[in-house]
Amino acid sequence: MLTCVRGLLAALAFWMALPASAQPSSLLPVPSSMRLADGRLTIDSTTRFEIAGFADARLRRAVERAQSRLAQRISQPVTGAARDTARVPAARAITIDVAGAGMTVQGIEEVEGYSLVITSQGATLRSATVVGALRGLETMLQLVEGDGGSFFLPSLEIHDAPRFPWRGLLVDVSRHFMPLEQLKRTLDGMALVKLNVFHWHLSDDQGFRVESRRFPLLHQRGSDGLFYTQAQVREIVAYARDRGIRVVPEFDMPGHTTAWFVGYPQYATKAPPIAIRREWGGADAIFDPTREETYTFIAQFIAEMVPLFPDPYWHIGGDEVEAKHWDGNARIVAWRTRHGYKDNAALQAHFNRRLSAILVRHGKRMIGWDEILHPDLPAKTVVQSWRGVQYLANSARQGFAALLSAPWYLDYMKPASDYYTVDPVPQFDELTPAQRALVLGGEACMWAEFVSDETAESRIWPRLGAVAERLWSPREVTDVAEMYRRLDILADRLEGMGVRVGSHSARLLARIAPGVETAPIESLFTAVQPPRFGQATNGRSTNQLHPLTRLVDAARPDPAGRWMIERLVRRLALDPQDVAARDSLLVVFERWSLLLPRVEALAATSPTLAEALPVARALARTAVIGTEAVGFVTAGRVAPADWARAAAEELRRYEAPQGTLRVAIVADVRKLLAMASAQPATSDGR
Amino acid sequence: MLTCVRGLLAALAFWMALPASAQPSSLLPVPSSMRLADGRLTIDSTTRFEIAGFADARLRRAVERAQSRLAQRISQPVTGAARDTARVPAARAITIDVAGAGMTVQGIEEVEGYSLVITSQGATLRSATVVGALRGLETMLQLVEGDGGSFFLPSLEIHDAPRFPWRGLLVDVSRHFMPLEQLKRTLDGMALVKLNVFHWHLSDDQGFRVESRRFPLLHQRGSDGLFYTQAQVREIVAYARDRGIRVVPEFDMPGHTTAWFVGYPQYATKAPPIAIRREWGGADAIFDPTREETYTFIAQFIAEMVPLFPDPYWHIGGDEVEAKHWDGNARIVAWRTRHGYKDNAALQAHFNRRLSAILVRHGKRMIGWDEILHPDLPAKTVVQSWRGVQYLANSARQGFAALLSAPWYLDYMKPASDYYTVDPVPQFDELTPAQRALVLGGEACMWAEFVSDETAESRIWPRLGAVAERLWSPREVTDVAEMYRRLDILADRLEGMGVRVGSHSARLLARIAPGVETAPIESLFTAVQPPRFGQATNGRSTNQLHPLTRLVDAARPDPAGRWMIERLVRRLALDPQDVAARDSLLVVFERWSLLLPRVEALAATSPTLAEALPVARALARTAVIGTEAVGFVTAGRVAPADWARAAAEELRRYEAPQGTLRVAIVADVRKLLAMASAQPATSDGR
Repeated sequence: MLTCVRGLLAALAFWMALPASAQPSSLLPVPSSMRLADGRLTIDSTTRFEIAGFADARLRRAVERAQSRLAQRISQPVTGAARDTARVPAARAITIDVAGAGMTVQGIEEVEGYSLVITSQGATLRSATVVGALRGLETMLQLVEGDGGSFFLPSLEIHDAPRFPWRGLLVDVSRHFMPLEQLKRTLDGMALVKLNVFHWHLSDDQGFRVESRRFPLLHQRGSDGLFYTQAQVREIVAYARDRGIRVVPEFDMPGHTTAWFVGYPQYATKAPPIAIRREWGGADAIFDPTREETYTFIAQFIAEMVPLFPDPYWHIGGDEVEAKHWDGNARIVAWRTRHGYKDNAALQAHFNRRLSAILVRHGKRMIGWDEILHPDLPAKTVVQSWRGVQYLANSARQGFAALLSAPWYLDYMKPASDYYTVDPVPQFDELTPAQRALVLGGEACMWAEFVSDETAESRIWPRLGAVAERLWSPREVTDVAEMYRRLDILADRLEGMGVRVGSHSARLLARIAPGVETAPIESLFTAVQPPRFGQATNGRSTNQLHPLTRLVDAARPDPAGRWMIERLVRRLALDPQDVAARDSLLVVFERWSLLLPRVEALAATSPTLAEALPVARALARTAVIGTEAVGFVTAGRVAPADWARAAAEELRRYEAPQGTLRVAIVADVRKLLAMASAQPATSDGR
Repeated sequence: MLTCVRGLLAALAFWMALPASAQPSSLLPVPSSMRLADGRLTIDSTTRFEIAGFADARLRRAVERAQSRLAQRISQPVTGAARDTARVPAARAITIDVAGAGMTVQGIEEVEGYSLVITSQGATLRSATVVGALRGLETMLQLVEGDGGSFFLPSLEIHDAPRFPWRGLLVDVSRHFMPLEQLKRTLDGMALVKLNVFHWHLSDDQGFRVESRRFPLLHQRGSDGLFYTQAQVREIVAYARDRGIRVVPEFDMPGHTTAWFVGYPQYATKAPPIAIRREWGGADAIFDPTREETYTFIAQFIAEMVPLFPDPYWHIGGDEVEAKHWDGNARIVAWRTRHGYKDNAALQAHFNRRLSAILVRHGKRMIGWDEILHPDLPAKTVVQSWRGVQYLANSARQGFAALLSAPWYLDYMKPASDYYTVDPVPQFDELTPAQRALVLGGEACMWAEFVSDETAESRIWPRLGAVAERLWSPREVTDVAEMYRRLDILADRLEGMGVRVGSHSARLLARIAPGVETAPIESLFTAVQPPRFGQATNGRSTNQLHPLTRLVDAARPDPAGRWMIERLVRRLALDPQDVAARDSLLVVFERWSLLLPRVEALAATSPTLAEALPVARALARTAVIGTEAVGFVTAGRVAPADWARAAAEELRRYEAPQGTLRVAIVADVRKLLAMASAQPATSDGR
C-alpha cells in the first residue's frame, strides 16, 4: 500500500527513490557513533551466526529470529538457523559476543549499549548484556544492502547507546480492544526502533481488559468479553522481554473507572450506570477515596495482578479527576473537611499515598499522570506529563523523576516532524544538571477512541519512529528531511514484518467499495488526513460501538503529499527561480484539483464514499490557490491584495476538518501565499 | 493492493469500473433462480435483524456475524447487534425464518437451500436448516449496494440451492504449515462462496501436523514444532461448523509418510531417513502393509483421532505408491506371493480393505485418491480423481461415488477461466443417470510445496471462486467475462474481510526492497506469473527450509493483464477495425515494453529484484511482437512469412518460465500472430 501511494506519486517526474546502495545509511534510530570504512561483508546462504560469549535461551531465541529475518530479507536460507543442519565454513560469520545476561527483571538501569564492527571478513557484535545484543541485532539487520549480484553489510564500526533510559509507547486497549496478535506486531515494531517500554493502558471507562480471578465481574461485566486472560498477559510480558521491552501496566484510578463499577458499584462515589460507558470523555463515577473498603479492594486486586507484571514500575493513572466527582457527594466533602484536607488535590494526594503504600509493599514504584503532582506525593513517584511540556520541568524541579508525553499524543495526528523536533531536555532549559537527570525519557501515546485494531498501527507508524529516534539518538540528530527519508524506509521494513502501517487503507477501501476503482480516493489520501483528537468531528461518531470503517479511518496522518509540498515550498522560498520545484508544485496541484470530478462520480455510488466530497472540494480549491500563488512567486509579482485576502480567508476555512477529513497541505499553501504577498526580495530591480 | 493494481491499469483510458449500482448483480456464486423487482430496502442504522423461527446458538452466532459485517460494510452500527441495546422500530427488518437445526453432524445430505425475498418493507430469509440460512445470509450481504444517499438491498426474490452436495477445498499444511488464523480466514472465504468441505491434508513426507497423545513422537519429531494441538483442531472444526463447512481429515497412507517414520520407523518398508524429508517429491519409505503391527498402530492412531473429526468421511490418501517401495523389499514380495496378490495394486487394495474395516468400526466412510480404485475396494468408498478427469467417470462406472479434483489443482497456476469451464458432469458424457448421481462434486486443491502461510491465500483466491460457482450454480452459468467481472468484486470482498488475496505482494516487496520505489515490479506483475507446479523451476529452491520470499512468491497467478488482453484480442478477432480495442492493446503493450529499463535499474540494487530481469525482457519482446501483429491485423495486411516464423519461434520460448517467472500473455499474442498471418477475411476487397 505504501508502495502503492509512492506509485501514484511516482507518476510525477520529480519523485525518485535512489537505489538503496547509493543512499546514506538507512538506520533509524541513528547510532551514537558510526564510522564507515571501505569494503563489505557479503551476505548469502553461507553466512553463519555464531554465539561466542555468554548465551542464554533469550539470546538464542533472538539470534534465531535474526537469522530467520535475514533469510527472508535476502530470500535465501541462512545457515545456523535452528532447523538447518548443513555444515558451513567458519569464515564470514556474524559473531555475537555478550558478556552476561543483564538484569533478571529489566529495569531502567539495564545496559543497552553495544558495538558492531563489520569488515569483509566478518561482523562482530559485542555487548555487556543480552538486551544490548538485541539492539545491535536490529542495527545489523537494518544495514543489509544489495546490488545486482549480492547482498552485503557495509564495513563500519558502530558504538551505540541510548540517550534516555525510558523510551516508550502507550497503547490504550480500553476504548477499543487490541487483539494479542496486533500487540505482538507492535512490540516487533518497537524492538525495530529500539524502544524499551510498552505502557499498557488496561482499564478505563469503556473497558476493563484483564481477567481477574479474585474479582471476576471486572472482566465479565466490564469488557464485552474482550479481555486478556492471565495466560495471555504472561505471553505478552514474555514476548516483550524477549525483545528487551518492559511492560508497565496502567490501571487508571481513581477516575476513568466506570468499567470497574459495572461489576463492583460499591466502591464508587455514586451509583454508576449499569453498563459500560460507550460515549467518550467524562466519567460518571470514580473511586471513593474516603472508605477503607476501597483500599482493601484495590489492595487485593493489585496483589492478584502483581505476579503478572514483573516490572518495577506500576502506573496508577490519576488523570482527569474533577471536582464534581467528590464535591457532588456530601459524605465525601464532610470526610475531607474532617480529615483536614484543604482541597480535592490534597484528597487525591491522600488517595495516592495510600496507593503508593500498597505498591511499596509489592516492591513497586508508582507512576501517574501529571495531575498527581503534589507536595505530599511520595518521593520516588514518577510523573508523566500529558497536559503540557511545563509539567515535565515542574516535576523535575520538585524532585520527581519525570516522563514526557504531552507533545507525543499520536491521536493529535501531527506530522512526524512535529513529534521529532521536541526534546525532553532542551539545550537551553532552566533545569539544574540534577533536575535534568530526573528526566528519564518519554512515551508516545496511542489513545484509542478513534482507532480500532484495524487502524491503530497506521496511526502509530511510522511516526513513532520519529519519537524513538529522539529518545535514543544524540540530541544533535535533528535533520527533518533526513528523518522523513528514513521514516519511509522504516514504513516498508514494518510492513515487511507484517505491521499494518499503510495496508489498512486498501483493506478498508475494498470493504467500503468492493469492485469499485478507488484510485481517486487513494490519491486523495496523499493530501488529506483525519482530524486531530478534539477537533470538530462533523458527524463522526463518538460511540464505542460504532464501526471505525469509514474513509476517515482508511486515511493516514501526515500523508506523503504534505512533506513533499513542504520541501518544494522551502526550495521555492530559497530560490523563486527554482524551475524544477515550480513545475513539481504545479503538476501536483493540478493532479489534486483534477481529483474532484472523479471523487464526485464515486460519491454517487456510496454514502461512505460521499464522505470524501467536502474535503475533495477543499483540496481542489487549496490546490488552485497554491497554483496561483506559485504563479505570482515565480513571476516575481506581488499578488493583488484582494486576491490574497480572499485566498487567506478561504484557506483559513480549510484548516478545519471538511466533513470528517481535513486538508493536510493548508499550512504550506499559506506559506506560498505569504511569499506571493510579500515584496519580492531579489527580483524587484533594486 | 488489488486496488493498487487496478490503479496502475486505470491509467489506461479503456479500463473503467462501473459504479456498483449501475452494474448487474455481483452475486458469486449465481443463485439457482433470481427475479428482480422494482424498489429497494434501505439499509442503515435502524435496520434490524430478527430471528422469527427456530433458533439455536449456531444460528444466533451467524446472525451476529452478519450484523457485524453489515455494520462494517455500511460504516454504521446495525441495531440488534449483541452489544447494542437501543430500541428500534420493527419496520424494515431482515427476518430470518428457519425451520430446524439440520443434521447434528453435517453430512452430504444436509439441506442447504434457502429463499430470500426483499421488498421495500423488509427482507425475509427462509430455510429448512441453519446451514441454509448461512448460505442465504452470505447472499444477502453480497446484495448490499449504495448510492450517494444511502445503502440498500434491491427488491428481488431468490430461490437457491446447490447443484452438487460436495464443494470443497483441500489445503496442504504439511509441506508448509498454515497457522490457525490463516485457516480461519480461508474458512471465512469458503463460506462467502458457499463451499462446504474443508479437506485438511494433515500429514505428508514433509510434516505431521496434529498432536498425538498416544504416539507423541509423531508431532514431536515429525513437525519441527509446527503442529495443531488437539484443542486447536477442535477449534477449527467448530469454526468450520459455524460456517456450514465440514472438515474432512486426510492422513495420507501408505505412501507420503516419511514424517511419521522419524518417530516410528518400525512400521516402514525400509529404514527411513532420520529426519523429515525436506526435498519435494518421492517418499523414501512407506507403510509396510504385510505386518499386523502396522494395522494395530494405524487402528490405535485412528481411534485417537476419531473424536477430533466428527465428519462421516475419512480420507486415507493412497496416492503415489510406487512399485519400488514394495518390490525393493524381498520379505514383502514373498508375502504378496504367498497371499496370492497378483500385483502391487492388489496389495494396496488389501491395505485399503484393512483400513476400511478400521474406519467402518468408527462409523466412517473411506475416501482416497484415484490410485485406490480397484475391484476389491469396499463398495461405499469414495474416489477422488487427481491424475485425470477420466478417473471420475471410471469410478462412477465401477459404482463408486466420486469427486473431481484433477482439473482444479491451484498450484497449476491456470487462469480462473480454465477452472471455470470444467464441469464434473458434462452435458454429453457417457454415464447413465445412476452413474452421474455418483458424482458428488469436487474439490480444488492447494498443495503447499511452493506456497507459505504468507502466499497461500494469493494462490487460492480469487480463482477458488470460479470452482465454487461451478459446483453451486446451474450448469448453464458459464459466461467467462461475467465470471471475471464478479471475481474482481469477490477479491475485494475477501480483502475487506482480511483474506490476503493480493496484499501479500506489497508486503513481500516492502521486505525485498525497503524504501525502494517498486512500481515497475508491480506493473510487471500485471502480466507475469509464477510457473505452474512441475514446470522447470530455473533455480527455484525445492527445499522446505528455503524462504518463499522472492519475486515469484510476490507475483500472482492469472494476473489482471492476461484477461484484459484476451478480451481485447477477442474483440479484434471479431472486428479488426475495432479502434478502441486496437488503441488499448497498443497502449498496454507499449507500457509493458517500457518497463524493461526501469526493471533493469532496480535489478542493480538487489539480487532478489534481479530475478525480474529475464521475464521483463521476455515481456517486452512479447509486447513488441504483439504491437507489430496488431499493426498487421488492423491494417488488413498479411504479415510477412519470415517475420511470422521468427515471432512464433520467439513466443514459443516465452511459454517456458524465464528465470522463476513466466509471461502470462503469450497465448493471446500467439492468437494475434495467427490473425496477422491469416488471409484477412473481410478486408481483402472481396
